[in-house]
Amino acid sequence: MTDRILEFLADRRRAGRDNGPCLVVDLDVVRDNYLGFAKALPDTRVFYAVKANPAPEVLSLLASLGSCFDTASVVEIQQALAAGATADRISFGNTIKKERDIVRAYELGVRLFAVDCVAEVEKIARAAPGSKVFCRILCDGTGAEWPLSRKFGCAPEMATGVLEHAHALGLNAYGVSFHVGSQQTNPRMWDGALESAAEIFRDLSERGINLQMINLGGGFPTKYLKNVPAVKQYGNAIFRALSKHFGNRIPETIIEPGRGMVGNAGLIEAEVVLISKKSADENEIRWVYLDIGKFNGLAETTDEMIRYPIRTPADGAQTSPCVIAGPSCDSVDVLYEKQPYDLPVSLEIGAKVLIEGTGAYTTTYSAVGFNGFPPLETHVI
Amino acid sequence: MTDRILEFLADRRRAGRDNGPCLVVDLDVVRDNYLGFAKALPDTRVFYAVKANPAPEVLSLLASLGSCFDTASVVEIQQALAAGATADRISFGNTIKKERDIVRAYELGVRLFAVDCVAEVEKIARAAPGSKVFCRILCDGTGAEWPLSRKFGCAPEMATGVLEHAHALGLNAYGVSFHVGSQQTNPRMWDGALESAAEIFRDLSERGINLQMINLGGGFPTKYLKNVPAVKQYGNAIFRALSKHFGNRIPETIIEPGRGMVGNAGLIEAEVVLISKKSADENEIRWVYLDIGKFNGLAETTDEMIRYPIRTPADGAQTSPCVIAGPSCDSVDVLYEKQPYDLPVSLEIGAKVLIEGTGAYTTTYSAVGFNGFPPLETHVI
Repeated sequence: MTDRILEFLADRRRAGRDNGPCLVVDLDVVRDNYLGFAKALPDTRVFYAVKANPAPEVLSLLASLGSCFDTASVVEIQQALAAGATADRISFGNTIKKERDIVRAYELGVRLFAVDCVAEVEKIARAAPGSKVFCRILCDGTGAEWPLSRKFGCAPEMATGVLEHAHALGLNAYGVSFHVGSQQTNPRMWDGALESAAEIFRDLSERGINLQMINLGGGFPTKYLKNVPAVKQYGNAIFRALSKHFGNRIPETIIEPGRGMVGNAGLIEAEVVLISKKSADENEIRWVYLDIGKFNGLAETTDEMIRYPIRTPADGAQTSPCVIAGPSCDSVDVLYEKQPYDLPVSLEIGAKVLIEGTGAYTTTYSAVGFNGFPPLETHVI
Repeated sequence: MTDRILEFLADRRRAGRDNGPCLVVDLDVVRDNYLGFAKALPDTRVFYAVKANPAPEVLSLLASLGSCFDTASVVEIQQALAAGATADRISFGNTIKKERDIVRAYELGVRLFAVDCVAEVEKIARAAPGSKVFCRILCDGTGAEWPLSRKFGCAPEMATGVLEHAHALGLNAYGVSFHVGSQQTNPRMWDGALESAAEIFRDLSERGINLQMINLGGGFPTKYLKNVPAVKQYGNAIFRALSKHFGNRIPETIIEPGRGMVGNAGLIEAEVVLISKKSADENEIRWVYLDIGKFNGLAETTDEMIRYPIRTPADGAQTSPCVIAGPSCDSVDVLYEKQPYDLPVSLEIGAKVLIEGTGAYTTTYSAVGFNGFPPLETHVI
């Protein structure tokens, strides 16, 4: 929450334009975050995870600061190029790609691709000959608030064969990637994955293939309700782990922050639509319904994984636990219920609330028109 | 799956326009479903739940057949009006409404509103004076594949007070509604809710308030993998329960089918993007990645609740269990994993698959641009 954002929202209210939920992203915070990463990991290139927030203003700022870009699709590659990034600063980081999309990326100049199996290597050898590939490995996501499934990556033992196959097909077997889980609050979690990566480096080196790069992935947290370690602590822990496993032959490294780059740059203003109880029982919990929910911006409340700080005009008054739900006619559109949320007893229908840390994974997660509700209104300032 | 849909998809492939997942909805099936409801429940008015699929062609067809419309927002009211419905055939069925949206609905001519608490009654009394209101009650969702949370409705004991308050404020205390859970496979589940409703009718009658209507909600299933009872069986079970609890003074009734009206009218064609294994272990499960997932159409696979039938060109061959996942760089974008899905062993990357029963809760659930992927391409024929 910054003064610039609060002023923008006050202007919007004064102009009577506050008809629905609205996200405001402050570019000053994005800039600070980028410079924080650059300082904490001075020898590491930053590939911003475009999917976290692909707003053109965010991409242009990061391109001008020298950031590279991790992309999930051809559309995201085009967005990064439009923002001023050159193709050599773009990674096609999705391990699941249609062959015709690899062709398109190659035509656009992209030469760096993620893989996690032999079939994907073969597509890239055909569609983007000679390109660099890095193999994603599975790793332990303990400590992450949003632990990843096994969807991406292969067992470390298999990665050697995948990269060897790439080399045999004329690709540049370039490195190894992993992801320690989103909103990873333990900086030491990079150590185990780096140990596996070092083993793959050694195995391939013995076969005459010299990998050059480690993609340290994302996972850098943003502050929600709990404090998180500073980015400097991540930098230190990662450098120690790199030294431990690679000695004085530390490879080129890249990181892919998304949430850590834009999460705390965004603030959503929403409105209390209804407050009610389900029965006359004195102990019955209050339900607080907002005009934003899982389908128009807060998809990351699924399974109550991300717990956003919510500020209200009644803060400071006595609180009581609430269930918080969204505005749609969908019964799964409930944000916090298993672990109820404390809100002021004096909170009223019509009040505006501020939802912090909402710069990442909100805008493009919005449904296109679910229940007739529009996607999340967004302003980048 | 109809011949008309298959022909449309074949034409699309021949024209080389098959670049991404695509939903095709056959209006003939929607018409059959509407007529099926009208026949099975001849004394009940049908309010189509617009949120299930608000395609203009679907709404226009239903309007021309005489359907009424259950809407969740002002935008949906406008869509129903644009399709040719008159305002007296529209219910604002969302229990969570901004007061200014009630004003807007009233200006558009809507006079029928859902409530589940005193605060909502007060909004309607101010914003839509004299309108009809029905109170939604909580009921047991056993037997539903998508059981509803407690988000909508109040305890039946509270409903009496809510409707009495509406009456005192000059509103028309019109009836009671409930919802037995989406994809409800047990036609007898309406009985318990009707028992509660009858009690509310009696209580209010003793206080001089004569309710007139019961909104039987939705819940009518569509056929996914398992067979479901025919709509006629629902009609019979509901009529028996109405007679049991209301004798020969059966009130006016309405139903709100959504899934049951359009679910089986839709078919999605998708593409296999990648097939891989996570390790060299012989028992390792296959992962099959499609170009459609939770974020671009199949949101109802959340928690693996809806299990769509999937047809492949290799059907008939030997099968083995797979994890099925979507194309995005999001690790939660996995469709079926806890209960793996049997697909042919000979299924290949690039194959087109057909996902049946996808006419409801797919198009507008799509994210606006997550990972750079567009919302679900849709054609109504």
